[in-house]
Amino acid sequence: MDKIKIGSVGLGRLGLRHAENLASKIMGAQLIALCDVDDRKLNDTADRLGVAHRFSDFEAMLKLPELDAVLIASPSALHTGQISSALAAGKHVFTEKPLGVTVEECKAAEKAVEKYPDRVFMIGFMRRFDDSYMYAHEKVISGQIGRPILFRSYSQDPEKFIDGAIAFAPHSGGEFLDMAVHDIDLARWFLQDEPESVYAIGGCYAHPEFAQYKDGDNVSCLMKFRNEAMAFLFAGRTAPHGYNVETEIIGTKGTLRIASVPQKNLVEVLDSHGVRRECSENFLERFSASYVNEVQEFVDSIRYRRKPAVTVYDGTKVSEIAYRCKEAFERGTMLRF
Amino acid sequence: MDKIKIGSVGLGRLGLRHAENLASKIMGAQLIALCDVDDRKLNDTADRLGVAHRFSDFEAMLKLPELDAVLIASPSALHTGQISSALAAGKHVFTEKPLGVTVEECKAAEKAVEKYPDRVFMIGFMRRFDDSYMYAHEKVISGQIGRPILFRSYSQDPEKFIDGAIAFAPHSGGEFLDMAVHDIDLARWFLQDEPESVYAIGGCYAHPEFAQYKDGDNVSCLMKFRNEAMAFLFAGRTAPHGYNVETEIIGTKGTLRIASVPQKNLVEVLDSHGVRRECSENFLERFSASYVNEVQEFVDSIRYRRKPAVTVYDGTKVSEIAYRCKEAFERGTMLRF
Amino acid sequence: MDKIKIGSVGLGRLGLRHAENLASKIMGAQLIALCDVDDRKLNDTADRLGVAHRFSDFEAMLKLPELDAVLIASPSALHTGQISSALAAGKHVFTEKPLGVTVEECKAAEKAVEKYPDRVFMIGFMRRFDDSYMYAHEKVISGQIGRPILFRSYSQDPEKFIDGAIAFAPHSGGEFLDMAVHDIDLARWFLQDEPESVYAIGGCYAHPEFAQYKDGDNVSCLMKFRNEAMAFLFAGRTAPHGYNVETEIIGTKGTLRIASVPQKNLVEVLDSHGVRRECSENFLERFSASYVNEVQEFVDSIRYRRKPAVTVYDGTKVSEIAYRCKEAFERGTMLRF
Amino acid sequence: MDKIKIGSVGLGRLGLRHAENLASKIMGAQLIALCDVDDRKLNDTADRLGVAHRFSDFEAMLKLPELDAVLIASPSALHTGQISSALAAGKHVFTEKPLGVTVEECKAAEKAVEKYPDRVFMIGFMRRFDDSYMYAHEKVISGQIGRPILFRSYSQDPEKFIDGAIAFAPHSGGEFLDMAVHDIDLARWFLQDEPESVYAIGGCYAHPEFAQYKDGDNVSCLMKFRNEAMAFLFAGRTAPHGYNVETEIIGTKGTLRIASVPQKNLVEVLDSHGVRRECSENFLERFSASYVNEVQEFVDSIRYRRKPAVTVYDGTKVSEIAYRCKEAFERGTMLRF
Repeated sequence: MDKIKIGSVGLGRLGLRHAENLASKIMGAQLIALCDVDDRKLNDTADRLGVAHRFSDFEAMLKLPELDAVLIASPSALHTGQISSALAAGKHVFTEKPLGVTVEECKAAEKAVEKYPDRVFMIGFMRRFDDSYMYAHEKVISGQIGRPILFRSYSQDPEKFIDGAIAFAPHSGGEFLDMAVHDIDLARWFLQDEPESVYAIGGCYAHPEFAQYKDGDNVSCLMKFRNEAMAFLFAGRTAPHGYNVETEIIGTKGTLRIASVPQKNLVEVLDSHGVRRECSENFLERFSASYVNEVQEFVDSIRYRRKPAVTVYDGTKVSEIAYRCKEAFERGTMLRF
Repeated sequence: MDKIKIGSVGLGRLGLRHAENLASKIMGAQLIALCDVDDRKLNDTADRLGVAHRFSDFEAMLKLPELDAVLIASPSALHTGQISSALAAGKHVFTEKPLGVTVEECKAAEKAVEKYPDRVFMIGFMRRFDDSYMYAHEKVISGQIGRPILFRSYSQDPEKFIDGAIAFAPHSGGEFLDMAVHDIDLARWFLQDEPESVYAIGGCYAHPEFAQYKDGDNVSCLMKFRNEAMAFLFAGRTAPHGYNVETEIIGTKGTLRIASVPQKNLVEVLDSHGVRRECSENFLERFSASYVNEVQEFVDSIRYRRKPAVTVYDGTKVSEIAYRCKEAFERGTMLRF
Repeated sequence: MDKIKIGSVGLGRLGLRHAENLASKIMGAQLIALCDVDDRKLNDTADRLGVAHRFSDFEAMLKLPELDAVLIASPSALHTGQISSALAAGKHVFTEKPLGVTVEECKAAEKAVEKYPDRVFMIGFMRRFDDSYMYAHEKVISGQIGRPILFRSYSQDPEKFIDGAIAFAPHSGGEFLDMAVHDIDLARWFLQDEPESVYAIGGCYAHPEFAQYKDGDNVSCLMKFRNEAMAFLFAGRTAPHGYNVETEIIGTKGTLRIASVPQKNLVEVLDSHGVRRECSENFLERFSASYVNEVQEFVDSIRYRRKPAVTVYDGTKVSEIAYRCKEAFERGTMLRF
Repeated sequence: MDKIKIGSVGLGRLGLRHAENLASKIMGAQLIALCDVDDRKLNDTADRLGVAHRFSDFEAMLKLPELDAVLIASPSALHTGQISSALAAGKHVFTEKPLGVTVEECKAAEKAVEKYPDRVFMIGFMRRFDDSYMYAHEKVISGQIGRPILFRSYSQDPEKFIDGAIAFAPHSGGEFLDMAVHDIDLARWFLQDEPESVYAIGGCYAHPEFAQYKDGDNVSCLMKFRNEAMAFLFAGRTAPHGYNVETEIIGTKGTLRIASVPQKNLVEVLDSHGVRRECSENFLERFSASYVNEVQEFVDSIRYRRKPAVTVYDGTKVSEIAYRCKEAFERGTMLRF
């Protein structure tokens, strides 16, 4: 079977990782083009990864006739436009989250996807492709923990990245849109349902800079789902111990916890600080394998003509919920969906 | 120094434990009287513990001239009345939670306590006397985890006690009053402040019997405190793994978790089920030492003429908050305090 | 039933703890006499604990007619003599380990004990009275882990006590006699058998001072028991993380680990050092409850006229084995028993 | 840079995994040939992986002119011969352990390797390429735990594979050669030195079948290294909980433990069995990434003309030590090296 020829746009931290994975770790794929506005980064990366075609313009890349698919890791504001152009040019599309920066944009993306039903479209909710999350999901869906009662999920970035977070604050859309979207996606995926109400709170506990954007450095929300399941989400930017993504699903027959300790690896240290585990430093370390798995799923979906489990509607739903959380947080009240 | 002579009322599970502790594990105290309406249980226990004075009537016990203090472990509805009588009779009083079954009763208890300022009065929030909770509290109060951001606390009873819980449901006042009061007390103790808003949800996930009492078998609430700290509380009656009381305090400089695994002891088992910890079975097992420590603190307060840290106002506050949670749960909305 | 009247000799760290426990935590016992050569410590302690009779001479204490029993926590070299005198004076005897400082002394103690079969004699192997060890032992003896294959046990003292250890080195008898005796006792208790061969090694990895006493700062031995079970013991004086006593029993049907993390309590800390547990600092902290339990067992044995499970022969056996380990270590070879 | 063209011999469980990895996960390599005596397995695998050249004869494969390198995963008895032939044919060689089935064979392999110094030769001690072991090794070598005192390592196979182990027993060489070689390699790697004495014991605790081959189903040994460090190794075939490979290095400044719980992933289950971790099932699951990493290192060594850290002498040394352990076990005594 021929390899799927892929062009990737965006060489930020995650875009770079996707490019590297495409160049070496994805079976059945070939990275043939790269696109970025930073010429130097573009050429350095393309040289290093042995990629011939280089573009500063996304539309130009789409004209490359042998291109089968694109991976979009550009700034969020560009996602919807690039999704539409790429689909219109006949390419399969993998896009990083978010689907769009407004719900309207998401709806536009839905339209584009619906227009090209033979194209594979996938959105990068990488946690669904983490071994541990998949293992837990299988247990939940097969009923091993009974009926889900409470879903709890944390997304905490390390304090050491706070300067970057503050600099990005005007564009981040707030913690619910920037960070909690992954937890919202997980909640829907594990609970197999939609929320019907949300109460959201939080504040600037260490960094007042976020207040001017109506954001906090740590926020949380409590949601009730239609099936009565409860969901408590917490997002924070000030974790001293590392990158902490953990999830708990309490059911009537059992409870599952995923990564309740964000251990870096299997090494335990016993020293003057006690008995300790060192922690993951960032999402690229923690979800290293997931970023490979999700793109592999995208490529396999193209090759074996199947539909990825994550759909464009998941992207829209997650955005709608995150916006509602943000609104509840800003208004300091409970809202219904 | 003479031993403090104590009479104890109520020989239910916890009352019995208190009597046993008073008979053997509390320094500087002597259990001289027992009171219960069940004659046989009364005499059996008094015989076993070597207690001479036996009463079926609480007021009669109070007339015992050498009696210095009473421990109240009778049904909740009797607490306020017994507190008032005992204080009026000149006795020091230790009462189990709740202070009263309504906020009005609590206020009446406050009046009685204020009327006898030289009497020691204490309420049994035993978690404050657990080694691990005390250790964590010291760290939080001394600023070791910075400013508190999120307080999370679970109280889960084992599924195997569900029949008792259902039978008691008409009288329990609901999960917030029956179970979450301990978590509410901890939240105030750790956060050193009061809540200003609450949203509460939950449902009958396994046992529809609770619905008729406007209760659930699992409930939760999200509160915002005046100092902006968030508090998420969860109470459940269906834990398959055992008695699970765990608490987490996330601060700007560190996070503490108390009993995130409700381990029975220090034994780890590696067998066909994996690598596992067996769990605590009930509150008497988990808080065995706390029940001794709290009564020791009561006795020492009498002996050394000092005031216990837990006051009658804590009892009232906790009840007020629990009632407000219950109301938010029943009305399905967010409420302010 | 009358309380057992006890006199305690030796007010070192552990003797003091025993005295405090006898004064307040042991049911059915009364501490009526204390004996120590340090007058000031003797009087201070006796005043604090409300003990009337005070002695600098052990033989004088034995003449106290109302005395039922003695607890011996004096220097090791005095144990055997005091055991014999006390038994001859008609007293029940609880002695701290070791039974004697030579095997000959142990045999003499055996004779004394055999001569007074109606007196209760017990030796303080406190680990057998720790909740977790008891729980594990019950599982092993009832066959829940099948046939024992490997017994592994560590005794590590914190590095911060190294100065005391060096000062005590001339009198300690070496690590096998001073520290590993508890692990040897556990091995025999869990495996229900005796060793038939041993190989012992070790060295001075951080503190050359021990070499002059033919000792190491860390040593280990591998033993084969008659029933083919293997036992690996490790004793060290340089643990940076705290007081680490852990044991593992690998069986054909399961493995048990006791205290594989020497956690101080149930608090977990997440901070810049990672996710960590703080550790026990010393034996008094780790085995606090065991020291109460073992003396309670002694007192109950007297009151209810039964024999303690730990016998004088256990004391001798453990000493014999420890001496053989020491010899193997010094000769650098494997020895048979 | 051109891809390294590789032929792989042996399609047993591990050989198959190597072939799959070469076909898809190793950067800079191309699997162009497969060799196995089982025609059907050969063709099925070659078809599935898209490999053109197929051989039932290893020597024939070596004649393929474009072949740069071979990976040897054939039965142990063939290793040395194939190593020599391949090197003589000008190929780079990666061989699975053991280097040879006797020390003489290992010496012969050494000669062959020395004769072709420009060829890359590497032996598959995959644990050295596990993230956690590498992380721990870096800490040890850089002195973060001070001077090593005790190295402890377990290799336990699950009981569920016992039938295979019994069937293989006549050819396995015994547990020290078959299983403990990895622990021996780790001991030398972490301690940077060689053993000078060993005492080995064990037995047939559950499966008497091993006795006829002078083997046990569980064995252990205690070694002293020249630098005084102690090493305790344990190998077993009867673990009920899964595939358990764990290692501990106790140093004067700290202790490291690698995989003290053989957790399958990051999921924790709380159910009627307690709080538990499910375990790795076999070496292919536990060391999945290591098998990729080690072959990547082999390929990179060829491409970038460098020498792998694992040498042929490591293979010989490990065999020599394993044979000495076996001898000590069989003779029931302590032996010097």
